[in-house]
Amino acid sequence: MDGVLSDTYAQYIIWYERDSGIKKTREDVIGKPELEAFPKVREYLYTDGFFRTAPVIADSQKVLARLQEQYEIFIVSSATEFPQSLTEKQAWLGEHFPFISWKQMVFCGSKTIIQADIMIDDHLKNLDHFSGETFMFSQPHNLLWQGPKHKRVNSWLEIENTLL
Amino acid sequence: MDGVLSDTYAQYIIWYERDSGIKKTREDVIGKPELEAFPKVREYLYTDGFFRTAPVIADSQKVLARLQEQYEIFIVSSATEFPQSLTEKQAWLGEHFPFISWKQMVFCGSKTIIQADIMIDDHLKNLDHFSGETFMFSQPHNLLWQGPKHKRVNSWLEIENTLL
Repeated sequence: MDGVLSDTYAQYIIWYERDSGIKKTREDVIGKPELEAFPKVREYLYTDGFFRTAPVIADSQKVLARLQEQYEIFIVSSATEFPQSLTEKQAWLGEHFPFISWKQMVFCGSKTIIQADIMIDDHLKNLDHFSGETFMFSQPHNLLWQGPKHKRVNSWLEIENTLL
Repeated sequence: MDGVLSDTYAQYIIWYERDSGIKKTREDVIGKPELEAFPKVREYLYTDGFFRTAPVIADSQKVLARLQEQYEIFIVSSATEFPQSLTEKQAWLGEHFPFISWKQMVFCGSKTIIQADIMIDDHLKNLDHFSGETFMFSQPHNLLWQGPKHKRVNSWLEIENTLL
């Protein structure tokens, strides 16, 4: 969800500029872990409203709606580390992805227990443990990663072209 | 979690007696779906505090703590149907099972996406879709079920004897 549907970087940039007066760009933080890129991230992740008000990643709504006509979709989100995020994430999905029902939501800590055919994620720690096909969704923190193990996708339009 | 760690029936009985003055017993509702057994259950499930204040099933704490020494444990709970239950369930686990970390928690709608070696659950709808070994934890609603497909366990002490 974060970094694939929810534009966490856009939210980092907005909150960081609001707090520090400094406007960082995605280019400024390429290859850096999120916690390093925005020193206050850890605090933000525990702050009410951070997840609830995050922008939506371009084209994710229309492409996911189309995918759902042919695939069984689950939204699996790391959330239990930040307990306040649970209801925020469910409400956010309800607002921006109303075609995703509660039956399709999974809020967890580790994704190692998830079984499916395809995983789209921005983190190696999730993709590396998955037994099915893996798509790495590009975000600044993973842009320097190269390898044959996961197929890189740079946008939802690329996902659409690949899966539909 | 509900009906395996959390004593949902004890909570149904307490809340139902409080509302109606009628004290039902587990024996009164054997073989009945929960929604039928306690006519106000559906409302309770959406009420603040219902999940947070539920009693703990006998011996679950000590047996799960012992199991954790030899098994990788995940608590997978149907929760997204009742959004207010998400933070209540996490807080309940934190209070009664402090040795279970956020990394081991999964709050979902459907459990069909879960992969593991063993599932302990009180509902056929969860056990029937699971690819590993299945234990049906006895609760009034499932007591009339018979079959070779899932191993019935009547208590956490029985689970301890089977798995340790």
